[in-house]
Amino acid sequence: MNAQDFRIGVVGAGMMGADHIRRITRSISGANVSAVIEPDTGRAQAALGDAPAAQAFTRVEDALDAGAVDGLLIATPGFLHEPVLLPAIEAGIPTLCEKPLTPDPESSLRVLEAEQAGGRRLIQVGFMRRFDPEYRQLRGLVESGETGELLMLRCAHRNAVVPDSYQQESLITDSVVHEFDIVPWLAGSPIRSVEVKFARRNPLTPERLREPILVLMELENGVLVDLEMNVSVQFGYQVSTEAVFSSGIARIGEPTGLQTWHAGRFSMGEHADFTTRFATAYDAQVQAWVDASRAGTTTGPSAWDGYRVAVACQEGVASLGGGGQRTIDVPPTPAFYA
Amino acid sequence: MNAQDFRIGVVGAGMMGADHIRRITRSISGANVSAVIEPDTGRAQAALGDAPAAQAFTRVEDALDAGAVDGLLIATPGFLHEPVLLPAIEAGIPTLCEKPLTPDPESSLRVLEAEQAGGRRLIQVGFMRRFDPEYRQLRGLVESGETGELLMLRCAHRNAVVPDSYQQESLITDSVVHEFDIVPWLAGSPIRSVEVKFARRNPLTPERLREPILVLMELENGVLVDLEMNVSVQFGYQVSTEAVFSSGIARIGEPTGLQTWHAGRFSMGEHADFTTRFATAYDAQVQAWVDASRAGTTTGPSAWDGYRVAVACQEGVASLGGGGQRTIDVPPTPAFYA
Amino acid sequence: MNAQDFRIGVVGAGMMGADHIRRITRSISGANVSAVIEPDTGRAQAALGDAPAAQAFTRVEDALDAGAVDGLLIATPGFLHEPVLLPAIEAGIPTLCEKPLTPDPESSLRVLEAEQAGGRRLIQVGFMRRFDPEYRQLRGLVESGETGELLMLRCAHRNAVVPDSYQQESLITDSVVHEFDIVPWLAGSPIRSVEVKFARRNPLTPERLREPILVLMELENGVLVDLEMNVSVQFGYQVSTEAVFSSGIARIGEPTGLQTWHAGRFSMGEHADFTTRFATAYDAQVQAWVDASRAGTTTGPSAWDGYRVAVACQEGVASLGGGGQRTIDVPPTPAFYA
Amino acid sequence: MNAQDFRIGVVGAGMMGADHIRRITRSISGANVSAVIEPDTGRAQAALGDAPAAQAFTRVEDALDAGAVDGLLIATPGFLHEPVLLPAIEAGIPTLCEKPLTPDPESSLRVLEAEQAGGRRLIQVGFMRRFDPEYRQLRGLVESGETGELLMLRCAHRNAVVPDSYQQESLITDSVVHEFDIVPWLAGSPIRSVEVKFARRNPLTPERLREPILVLMELENGVLVDLEMNVSVQFGYQVSTEAVFSSGIARIGEPTGLQTWHAGRFSMGEHADFTTRFATAYDAQVQAWVDASRAGTTTGPSAWDGYRVAVACQEGVASLGGGGQRTIDVPPTPAFYA
Repeated sequence: MNAQDFRIGVVGAGMMGADHIRRITRSISGANVSAVIEPDTGRAQAALGDAPAAQAFTRVEDALDAGAVDGLLIATPGFLHEPVLLPAIEAGIPTLCEKPLTPDPESSLRVLEAEQAGGRRLIQVGFMRRFDPEYRQLRGLVESGETGELLMLRCAHRNAVVPDSYQQESLITDSVVHEFDIVPWLAGSPIRSVEVKFARRNPLTPERLREPILVLMELENGVLVDLEMNVSVQFGYQVSTEAVFSSGIARIGEPTGLQTWHAGRFSMGEHADFTTRFATAYDAQVQAWVDASRAGTTTGPSAWDGYRVAVACQEGVASLGGGGQRTIDVPPTPAFYA
Repeated sequence: MNAQDFRIGVVGAGMMGADHIRRITRSISGANVSAVIEPDTGRAQAALGDAPAAQAFTRVEDALDAGAVDGLLIATPGFLHEPVLLPAIEAGIPTLCEKPLTPDPESSLRVLEAEQAGGRRLIQVGFMRRFDPEYRQLRGLVESGETGELLMLRCAHRNAVVPDSYQQESLITDSVVHEFDIVPWLAGSPIRSVEVKFARRNPLTPERLREPILVLMELENGVLVDLEMNVSVQFGYQVSTEAVFSSGIARIGEPTGLQTWHAGRFSMGEHADFTTRFATAYDAQVQAWVDASRAGTTTGPSAWDGYRVAVACQEGVASLGGGGQRTIDVPPTPAFYA
Repeated sequence: MNAQDFRIGVVGAGMMGADHIRRITRSISGANVSAVIEPDTGRAQAALGDAPAAQAFTRVEDALDAGAVDGLLIATPGFLHEPVLLPAIEAGIPTLCEKPLTPDPESSLRVLEAEQAGGRRLIQVGFMRRFDPEYRQLRGLVESGETGELLMLRCAHRNAVVPDSYQQESLITDSVVHEFDIVPWLAGSPIRSVEVKFARRNPLTPERLREPILVLMELENGVLVDLEMNVSVQFGYQVSTEAVFSSGIARIGEPTGLQTWHAGRFSMGEHADFTTRFATAYDAQVQAWVDASRAGTTTGPSAWDGYRVAVACQEGVASLGGGGQRTIDVPPTPAFYA
Repeated sequence: MNAQDFRIGVVGAGMMGADHIRRITRSISGANVSAVIEPDTGRAQAALGDAPAAQAFTRVEDALDAGAVDGLLIATPGFLHEPVLLPAIEAGIPTLCEKPLTPDPESSLRVLEAEQAGGRRLIQVGFMRRFDPEYRQLRGLVESGETGELLMLRCAHRNAVVPDSYQQESLITDSVVHEFDIVPWLAGSPIRSVEVKFARRNPLTPERLREPILVLMELENGVLVDLEMNVSVQFGYQVSTEAVFSSGIARIGEPTGLQTWHAGRFSMGEHADFTTRFATAYDAQVQAWVDASRAGTTTGPSAWDGYRVAVACQEGVASLGGGGQRTIDVPPTPAFYA
């Protein structure tokens, strides 16, 4: 663990918490998991497999008292957030809290009051769509005015299926909750009203649910929003937004990234250079090499691959210089490289 | 620096080397930059800004003698690779070597012999396309036989423009070199012959170059390849491969990922769940929070945002329960959260 | 005029009537324009330019009395439909009536009663979307059940701009009117309720209009519909429908034809053979040849083009037989063919 | 048959001839089929079903002597073209000749000489791609210079399967023949050389064929062409051309029409108004009405459909005026309209 790293205590080691532990350990720089706070010892032990240097606690107060964390990441169910947020604020610890902040406005207000009383902003809520490249591009388009003023948002949130724990209210509190955050963020205006309409019920939806639904929102600036919330669409997962502007249309959430209709054309961006086209490949390459080297093994293209390419380049250059069709002559791969 | 991290010495601190230093420091887990080997002290100092704990060396032998590295990443021009590879092999140090292995078959052979004499594979060559998700999907399709046998590959490598250092032979040695590696890897068969044809010269191409060219390759298994190599196409960057199978077509390298034509349909994959759709967003969210927290600032959705969403959820649930259109009533944002 | 042709009287020679006259004369087989019924003599004369054999009438009764028509095509504004439909029914003449049937339910009822009193169905209303290949494909998908049951329709009708004659009510009576016909036709169920919501007003919309609007419809079978009606979108023209099924999504109205999301894939149809791919080309070719031949001129590929291709084929066959690269040697084009 | 119509004699009543007879009768204006020239009396009788007013001939000379035709459309196999073309030229009759003009350059030259001796151009060859909207758009792009100079063409001609009559040479003489015409037409320059390369043989290709092949062409102006000719691709039918310009790329032949990559964007055209979006629908609507009316039946939307829409419009206008959600109240459909 680097001395200067930011030490994170992850609260809750369920599916979401375990995913964050893996993320902090594998993908995030400048931070490590220093504590796992989880009353279920089985879960806690499993989570420590990915973060062997972390300490296990069953109560957040103990982790704070031990000075074991510089920040907290809360990944428990929403009704357990307040009991963690209040001591974290008390201790002055920056906290990333999975959505929702708390399950109802009253408890949220108590958290707000505590944070303000402390005099310092400490809480970030996990509405991760704000960090999605496509939502950011779309917001950039709203701000640029390139396609005019924003007039409507036509949204769809489609899950293939949902788990047994998903209840009728979850349509709002687990799923639409994301739109309640991102719509005002995109449109630059708060929500004035909300209304739910029911579509024909999906015969494939679980007995306990009545959906899909259409959620209508009016924003203070007049922007109108209709959101299809659909959790049994079977075919896959799709979260899309079509933004209607005064002189064009834009859409995100299909496999192609931001699409626009403007000035008589439908268009999508193309890569400008290799840094975006092959960003994933470069990272994956070096990570694979590091992992193999640490394990004392090898992976990826070998020196023999390098040699074969050198021969092909030699003949390619000869053909480029006017040599016509050139044979590539490489001996059989030695067993050493097979 | 974590005690157990893999310590990498980066050889060459030019554009590519600096990029790898940033990558190891920010994106790769389980490794750090322990040494920068670069004779140009200006470059070396600049690179150390991103890797403050690294030591600076001017010769690779010094870094090896000092026991400062567990692995080497070579990011110098190709003609400087052999003098680094041979001592690395001698020292038994795993090495990731940017392409090409060396500039010609003779020098490549010397490296191969040294590596084999050492009795242990140590070298990985930087043909990063093998780690690109789309190339991997395409190779998976070849191996699965889902669209039949592979018959042809129709490729394009298009750059908007190239730098002044790019010469006529660079068409082969800097660019086509990637196809010389990836084509056999995709098709499962080595290259038997290569031939270059010239297209009408692009009037926008630099004086010193004659291009675009068409490179034809025949593979041992009969697969035929035509590659358009084009470095002045102006509009953007595109590296695409169209694979012709006995009962379908597949294409990678357009903004949409793998596309297939099969059984009367053109199709593309859709996300299966949020883990792929929002993978970038989750990583970016946590990284932004860590960076802000370490800097003592805040970013992203605040507790106030969380409260507003809690109000909207409360009213949304009421509407879902039959309450019709519901007003969202939230007081003005306190200055604390503005 | 062929003796057996169906003789059509076109009522109204404005833009729409003139377009129908051109259509009947140029594109439709088995019919001709035998009469133009139009009180404005200037318009009537202009229209007769495209149908020189047609007779001009100012009143529909005169055309009927003269026995000049086998059928009527009504292309006047809606409030003028009833005075033509009633005598047409009286005379037992089949009539294609541009939408709307009449402007209000009361007058429509009078027409219905007259038609039923006559004992024979004579009227077809010009809801031409039912003949659009994409709407038909989408209806076919609903009927096939391939993607499950239909649950919602999410529609958009977007015009770049509208003419000065377009008023606020036209949003419903000129534009949404098409959805009022096609939605029940697609969903197999009548409309139970309708409701209009206003979006943020487009600053580019004419002073007299307040739009875009969102029109919500509930159908008897529970299908829910939201339609964006937008007549100032500037960028082009788009009429699209996204159909939400119990196990997939389908969309029509984008440049690509029917798109579906099903079983983890986004897909579109590909041509099965040349009859669809080149249908337009074959028709256009023969029409161009007929037009040129009648005018005593020539067009399209000449015999010289045919000769050049014969030479290329000869050399192509030689190369196919193992002849390698073959030169194509054709003398300069004679002036006769230039 | 209209007195002023152009009277066409169709030579050959096989599949292609029958298709042209249907086209002239159903889709083409200003022309009719006045004669069918076909020695096979069974075929001739079948063809006359679509053109009852046409006369049957077994020899073209008889049709010419009888003054029965103003023009000829030749739809026989290529080796039978010359014996029809020469008497047609002799008689001064405009002729549309299915490709190829004749099967070899020598016979083509004889036709050319006859036509020139006659002093008047009479022959149009059936290279119908020149009339395809997408090829015309692409040629327009070449001529406009909007994406710079044309440098390469990368083509594919893919059939699902081919009939038993298709032989190895047919790859060139039946299929590539189209490219031999369209490539110079697109590029504005004749073909200088041609060369065939073989891909890995498709295991699904019939025994007698060796394909797919790659056909390389160099044009006089330096443009380089590679064409994949593939007649066993199974999945569907695709004829595509990718044009490489000095500052962009354009592609035709995919389901979406002309696609371009230019200035950092991938784009496609969108409709400008309803005349293109619904052109097919308008034609199909009127044709369906004419066909039903002539048959004494009805089709399409009825007056009852018109009434229902009038009710919906009335309620829609009320909602638009502030009436909120409005019920649509329509009595059950009378049996008369069921």
